[in-house]
Formats: sequence, structure tokens, C-alpha cells
Amino acid sequence: MFSTRRQARDSPTDDAMSGEIFLAEIREQPAALLRLLSHEQEFANVAEALARRAPSVVRLVGHGTSDNAASYGVYAFGLLPGWTALRDSISLTVYYDAAIDLSSSAVVALSQSGRTPDVVEYVQRARADGALTIALTNDPASELGLAAELVLPLAAGPEQAVAATKTYLNELASLLLLAGGAAGRGQEMAEGIRRVAGLLDESLPDLEPAAAQVAAAFAFVGRMFVIGRGVEFATAREIALKLTETCRVAAEPLTATDLVHGPLAALDPFFPVWAIASPDESLRAVVEAAARVREAGAAIVASGSAAHEIAGAAYSLPVPHAGDRLFAPLLSVVPGQLFAAALARAKGLDADRPDRLTKVTLAR
Amino acid sequence: MFSTRRQARDSPTDDAMSGEIFLAEIREQPAALLRLLSHEQEFANVAEALARRAPSVVRLVGHGTSDNAASYGVYAFGLLPGWTALRDSISLTVYYDAAIDLSSSAVVALSQSGRTPDVVEYVQRARADGALTIALTNDPASELGLAAELVLPLAAGPEQAVAATKTYLNELASLLLLAGGAAGRGQEMAEGIRRVAGLLDESLPDLEPAAAQVAAAFAFVGRMFVIGRGVEFATAREIALKLTETCRVAAEPLTATDLVHGPLAALDPFFPVWAIASPDESLRAVVEAAARVREAGAAIVASGSAAHEIAGAAYSLPVPHAGDRLFAPLLSVVPGQLFAAALARAKGLDADRPDRLTKVTLAR
Repeated sequence: MFSTRRQARDSPTDDAMSGEIFLAEIREQPAALLRLLSHEQEFANVAEALARRAPSVVRLVGHGTSDNAASYGVYAFGLLPGWTALRDSISLTVYYDAAIDLSSSAVVALSQSGRTPDVVEYVQRARADGALTIALTNDPASELGLAAELVLPLAAGPEQAVAATKTYLNELASLLLLAGGAAGRGQEMAEGIRRVAGLLDESLPDLEPAAAQVAAAFAFVGRMFVIGRGVEFATAREIALKLTETCRVAAEPLTATDLVHGPLAALDPFFPVWAIASPDESLRAVVEAAARVREAGAAIVASGSAAHEIAGAAYSLPVPHAGDRLFAPLLSVVPGQLFAAALARAKGLDADRPDRLTKVTLAR
Repeated sequence: MFSTRRQARDSPTDDAMSGEIFLAEIREQPAALLRLLSHEQEFANVAEALARRAPSVVRLVGHGTSDNAASYGVYAFGLLPGWTALRDSISLTVYYDAAIDLSSSAVVALSQSGRTPDVVEYVQRARADGALTIALTNDPASELGLAAELVLPLAAGPEQAVAATKTYLNELASLLLLAGGAAGRGQEMAEGIRRVAGLLDESLPDLEPAAAQVAAAFAFVGRMFVIGRGVEFATAREIALKLTETCRVAAEPLTATDLVHGPLAALDPFFPVWAIASPDESLRAVVEAAARVREAGAAIVASGSAAHEIAGAAYSLPVPHAGDRLFAPLLSVVPGQLFAAALARAKGLDADRPDRLTKVTLAR
């Protein structure tokens, strides 16, 4: 671990100060996952309350990284208890005051700080309408924690870098515990998360210099697509957001299928594509889309545990196989985080403090 | 009308052949909307069947432009009958075979050609599971039309340009008729669509040269954000897709709020932002986000009928006020379509036939 850190510091574009917090929080993720698991019983209790309520739909709300985690939540609830979950429109309720009956719904609100104004307002309204409201936040004493009927800690610990990393991973794991618990499989999920934390801890020392090496070639890249499908679409969204906020790359997340429904036309050899390949039923769509990307002459970075399935990828950043498909996103996002950290350095940007952003976004 | 066409042809980057089909279909939109209204009774019948079923949720499915229209559908169903509608995950059902009970759901599947493979498969599965399935397509005799229990014509007429325009507008209007009909307000929606078609017909002759004039300054732009909020997020998605597929601009759609949750950091004076401002409850969020964009030194193109509310916009492409907020997106997408047509020309690209795309996308 220490040798890896030295290696990163020795890179030609190094700056001993900038980006160190961001990188330290990426490295801290296995420990943050274990910290979350120390709250396993609290999650089990809330999951039981959720299962008793048997909601007609689960409404997930959040912005930025938390909304990316919500994309994952749709799959966690869909595949574990077999429930319909959706990333709800906050504006429909908060701005337009739509007359939608929320009384048979459950709400899962995600916010690192617990202070995102329209998420807080959404939860207040949904609770008043009779929905079962659950907050997932690093600060259970926050406004959001107080607004919701039930609150669970994300337990990521103080996150100082503006761009979230460990909060994202703990949000995924929290959704897994909650959805798994609602399906009577909470313990199995906790064991899986513990296993994944171990795999991540083992792979980080090699992944970090590997990602830095790939990033070196991207110093002048201004735009990218990040493609995934199924459970890995959340990963595509989160990697694209990291690249945009820390590296100032216009990185757009797309499902593999949506790429070929239009955006494919924009590609050229200077417009690389990051492809997330996990070994599940959606892999074929990603492999086929990657073949179309290659025809356009665009370079491909293949990641995920099935990265080797992407033929002709110029770069590869594989991760270990995570077991069940729902665990894969906890690993496959990490090469993207590390790549963003290294690319920000290569561009002379401070990943800890991107221009114009603050850690807590109070904008609506 | 004819004088406008001559003006467009006189532009220095003119090519008498390329982009003419795309432009002709944009101009045809008022007529296409009226063509749809000739099927008003069919929509009323299906809407009645839908209301009788009183679905627990409406699941909207489609790719590309049709998925953008689905974003609008969430608001149409939320604001008119007060139902929960969602852009459903196709992969959850089609790839992962999730055990979600669809029997109390309605499905609205959108596809220009009616041949999108995973949308067809989704509808077949949902119908077998007991959902009420409705297809909206230009080709009611297509596979999708046959797969669904009920089928309605989009009536956009043959669309030859690869990038959809009139199909998008007719998809929005179809969703409005359906959602309005389910709320017992179908006739009011039909009248509104007729009015909007008239407003569009009146404004096109001026909008076309105005959009071309703005586009002239963007010939070397490689990346943009397109921001909207609420009902106009669908518009942001559709304008971004047109810019990406016809102009090879990396144009990412963002809600005004998500922009300030990260992507704001990527902006600089060479990274312009298109802002859609409509005079509804979400306007403040767009105005505030635009102020942050301006602080970053990025140029703003303001459109929508409240474009004048965006202080300091470098360019403005307003449209007439459409009345109820649900009608606004039928007008506010058009400056984006016209801008894309003109920008493709300015870049020497053929908007009728973008590289690597085909009119019917058979990829999964």
C-alpha cells in the first residue's frame, strides 16, 4: 500500500498537496464499507419495517452522486424483493405540487450532508402524505435525518473532498442492505459487502498505478462517453460525473443501447469511450456497442471484471469478479475514481477542490 | 415561409442537398401535429380503457428520442391524472428477468419504427404478465404494434432524416392526449395542441433564420451542456441528442440542479450552455443555475418563452408562450432542432445522414 502511494507521488505531474484528500478517500473505501456493516442491525430493523409496509413503489431521491446511487437502487429493489423502484421527479412534487397519492409509497432519500434543500422538502411532503420515509445520510442529525420517519447512517465518515467517492460506495452498499433486508436476504448482502471490501482492499495497490498509467495518455482529452448497461449504468453515471467535476472532461454517461441510438455519430479518434463490462446478462449489449465504437476509430478504456471481453480496447482496467451481479458496481466504479484522480493531476487540476463547487450544494 | 428558405440557402456554408430533409421535417411539424389530432377519437378510446384499468404505475419505455419523450410523459401523467409514471428499466425485465409484478401496471411503449428489439420484447413480457400494453408508433402494423394490446398511430408520417424531429413532437402530443384523456381532459389537450401547432407555424419563419444566425458562432464548439428543469428536462435531453448526433457536439443534458452538483466545475468560456427557460415553478432553478454558468465565463444560449429571464445570455432564441406548462415543451424544443440543422451545415456535416447511424436502430 505504501509503495503504491510513493509511486503515485513520483509521477511527473505530481503535486504533493492537490488531490491528496480525494485519493485518500478512495483508498479508505474498504474501511468505510466495513464501518457501514457495523450498523447492520439498524439496517435490518428498517428493512423489516419497509417489508411490513409492502410499498407499491419505492421512490428514490437525491442529486449528483446520490442520484447515481439511486440508479443502482432501482436494480437492487427490482432484483431482491422484486419491487418497482424509481428515481422520482423531485420537481413534480416540490415545484409543481402534483396531486400524486404517495400514501402507499416508500421513499428512500439519499444525501451525503443531509442538507440538500429540495430533497428535504420532498421528504417532508411525502411524509405528510403518508409515505414511509427513510433517509440515508452521513449526518443522521441533519435536516434530512430529522425530516424522515426513519434514518440510517451512511457511515462513510467525514468526506472532505468535494467530489464524493466513499459516500457513493456506502450508498450502494446501504441500498443493498435495505433491499436485501426487505427480501429476507440482508445477512447474505452483508456478507457479500464484507467480501467485496476485502477484494477492493487487495486490488487497490495495483489498480492505483495502473489507472495513473492509463490516465497519462488522456491529459488533453476534452470529451468522453462512459457506457454501461443494467446495474452498471449507475457506474457509468458516477464515473462520468467524477471525470466532469474533477478533470473538466465533458463526459456523458450512456447506456450501451442509447449510444447506438444517436450519440455514436459524434465519435472520432479523439473522442474516447470508457466501457464498463460486467459478466451478466447485459454484457452482450456492451460488447456490441464497443464494437461500433471501435469502427468509429475511437479508443476504448475497458473496465469491470469482464474487461477482457471488450475486443480491441486500447486500455484495460479490470477489477476482480464480485460474485452476484449486484455486487459488481461496488468494484467497477473504483478504476474510474482512480483514473479521475490521476487525470486531474496530469491536467494540473486540484481534485480536492474543483472550481466553483462547494462540498454541500444548497442550490435547488 | 419561402423567403425564409431562400435565406437559409444563401448562408455561406450552404449545401443544397445536405440537411434539407432534416430541415423539411422540422418545418412540417405543425402539419404533423394536426395529422395526429385527426386520430383524437382513437386516443380518447384508449385513454378511457387506461382510466378504467386505473394502473398503479405507468411504465414508459423507449430509446433515444422516444426515451426523451418518456421523460415528458412522467410529467404528463403526474400532472393530469395524478399518476405515477416512470421511465422503466428495460434491462431489469428483458435481460435480468426480474420477478416484478406488472399485472397492475400500464405500459406505454414508444418507437418511431415499432421495430426496436428490446422494446418489443419488453412489451411482450409485460403483456404476458398481465399489464395493459399500449404502443405509440408511426407504424401500427409493426412488430411493436402487434405485440401490444392497444396501438395508437404517432401519425408523424414518413420520417426520412435519421435524427427524429416530428416524431418527437408527435410523441409529446400523443402522451398529452393519453394522459389528458385519462384525466377526462382529452378535448382540452387536443385544443391546446391545435393552438400550439398554430403558434409554431407562425413562428417558424422567423425562428429559422434566427437560429441559423446564432449557430454561425458555434462552428468550432465541441462540447455543451443543455439545462432544463421539470417538464423542460425532456427538452434538454432532446436538444442535446440532436446536437450530438447531427453536429458531433458532446452535448450533455442536465437538470439545472444537477449542473450545480458537479458539472459546473467543467465550464469555461469555450464550453457554452443552452438554457431552456419556461415560465413555470421550475424557472427559478434555471435562472439561478444560469447565473452560476455566467460566473464561470461560459456563454449562454437562452431559449423557451421565458428566455428574457436569463440575465446576461449571449444569445436568445425565445418562443411564444404556450399557455399551460405542459404545452411549453412542444414549442421550446424547436429552436434547438433548427440550431442543430444550421450548425450541422456550418460544420459541413449532413444532418440527414449522420455517420454510422441508420434510421431504424436494431441494436439492443
